[in-house]
Amino acid sequence: MSEQTIEYKSFAIVGLGLIGGSVAKDLRAEYPNAYIAAIDTDKKSIVESIKDGIVDEAIEYKHLPNLAQVTILAPPMDYIRESALCVSDSFAATHKRTFKNYIVLDTASVKTPVAELFEDLTAISQDVEFVATHPMAGTEYSGFKHARKDLFRAKPWIVCSHPNNTPEAIDAVSNFLHGFGAKVRQINAEEHDRQAALVSHSVIMLSNLIFEYIATKHPEALELAGDGFISTTRLASGNPELHKSIIQNNASFTEQHLEEFSEFLAEKVKHLSTDGDLLLDYFKQNMNQRNSWLRRRK
Amino acid sequence: MSEQTIEYKSFAIVGLGLIGGSVAKDLRAEYPNAYIAAIDTDKKSIVESIKDGIVDEAIEYKHLPNLAQVTILAPPMDYIRESALCVSDSFAATHKRTFKNYIVLDTASVKTPVAELFEDLTAISQDVEFVATHPMAGTEYSGFKHARKDLFRAKPWIVCSHPNNTPEAIDAVSNFLHGFGAKVRQINAEEHDRQAALVSHSVIMLSNLIFEYIATKHPEALELAGDGFISTTRLASGNPELHKSIIQNNASFTEQHLEEFSEFLAEKVKHLSTDGDLLLDYFKQNMNQRNSWLRRRK
Repeated sequence: MSEQTIEYKSFAIVGLGLIGGSVAKDLRAEYPNAYIAAIDTDKKSIVESIKDGIVDEAIEYKHLPNLAQVTILAPPMDYIRESALCVSDSFAATHKRTFKNYIVLDTASVKTPVAELFEDLTAISQDVEFVATHPMAGTEYSGFKHARKDLFRAKPWIVCSHPNNTPEAIDAVSNFLHGFGAKVRQINAEEHDRQAALVSHSVIMLSNLIFEYIATKHPEALELAGDGFISTTRLASGNPELHKSIIQNNASFTEQHLEEFSEFLAEKVKHLSTDGDLLLDYFKQNMNQRNSWLRRRK
Repeated sequence: MSEQTIEYKSFAIVGLGLIGGSVAKDLRAEYPNAYIAAIDTDKKSIVESIKDGIVDEAIEYKHLPNLAQVTILAPPMDYIRESALCVSDSFAATHKRTFKNYIVLDTASVKTPVAELFEDLTAISQDVEFVATHPMAGTEYSGFKHARKDLFRAKPWIVCSHPNNTPEAIDAVSNFLHGFGAKVRQINAEEHDRQAALVSHSVIMLSNLIFEYIATKHPEALELAGDGFISTTRLASGNPELHKSIIQNNASFTEQHLEEFSEFLAEKVKHLSTDGDLLLDYFKQNMNQRNSWLRRRK
């Protein structure tokens, strides 16, 4: 198969939440004439997405072999396994194929369990490759009403191949994700989970713990809190179900890094300098490093 | 004096940075016909602000008794003392007064040293009340080019009176600050500094320390960092001079709260639950508390 040259034109999205909905809006903008179907038990999102001209129709899993060359799984994280099994069953139930090859990719935040599952499903699903992926993007709001075009632009979108993926499918998926303006990176699932624990999952906990500390120990100080407190604790208003699933599924790495950061913090606090020159150097160095990192992402 | 009914119409702003510039833009919007002067050694900001129709002209401290009923001091924090002394000198140098009463207020982030200084200056400055205030607003950008209207809307703006302030002047300043849409609160300077250390100054350090931890110990993980990491570490791109001055001037409270948070974190990390129901409850509680806090601010 030479998927790099295929222009996909029929898509199905499972779960029209913030991520699935934003994928749908990007797809509609990039492929105005494409067929975009959705599977979601929440009829409100379906109705809204059809009214907006984003989604063409609601379908069921059994229609996938007939209708969708690319399926994007973006259900609540706890349903990713069930959803992927439904997709696999739909292909097992019939030999009829509209397309020669199919791609199924997910967007879940923890990749080791998904990559293991997808390795098995790819082995047993004729003409279908399951590819584990993760867009590093989001807001503190959830649901289709907060979905928006360009959510993934300039953000990392990680592709974690497993031994049953073909290089052609990985290339095709990477090209497809570039269409969202994302920075596509390929790393293995375990390394993804280790790094995501550092820059995402531990940070979810730290943002929550900073909020919890103030709200429970010094609630009177909330009256003075301004923009800095709001951004630093933004993740504490994030989707509780999502965050629960993330921490549960990546508990080991997250605990390990939180412990490491806690020791780092304790040591730093012990030696906090109040020397003006040292403080100025410290803040300048962080600012320069962070700003140049942000520029590199563009 | 019955300042509550006075509508101020002549203003001077010392320092056209993010805060001073945003004050100027709000003033111009609220009082289209007011006289707005500026004092700044940075001629570029002056030229830009005049070109934009925000500021009428650049003046010197010696013109204040003649021209400005309300002076807002928003220089870099290290210059607040020098700037306030220049204002005081300008009133000591002449007995001529265009107005019956004058208000001078500052916007510095640490209030105990300012309130002490202002107590002295109010005692020796005829017809002038110096009032220590602090708007809890900002962005990670600095300078007039990032100043914007409505920066202070729905944000706390703290007024810290000292023993030489009259209730009339405090009321007048409060009414004046309401004009920016700010949530005006009166607390004493030491309590301000204690609470600001909790929700602002410690948070500046924590945001920086989270960034530093990743950038120095696990820089490879920056490739995966997305929106959550960006907002949680936003303050690490903040103005280094401002943050240096804040930490230096409020070192004792900041150190105390960082130590307390560090112990809180170590304890929490030791008992991090991976029970789904407990995690879900935890995230839901934070989300509800934070969202209802945000709603109350509106």
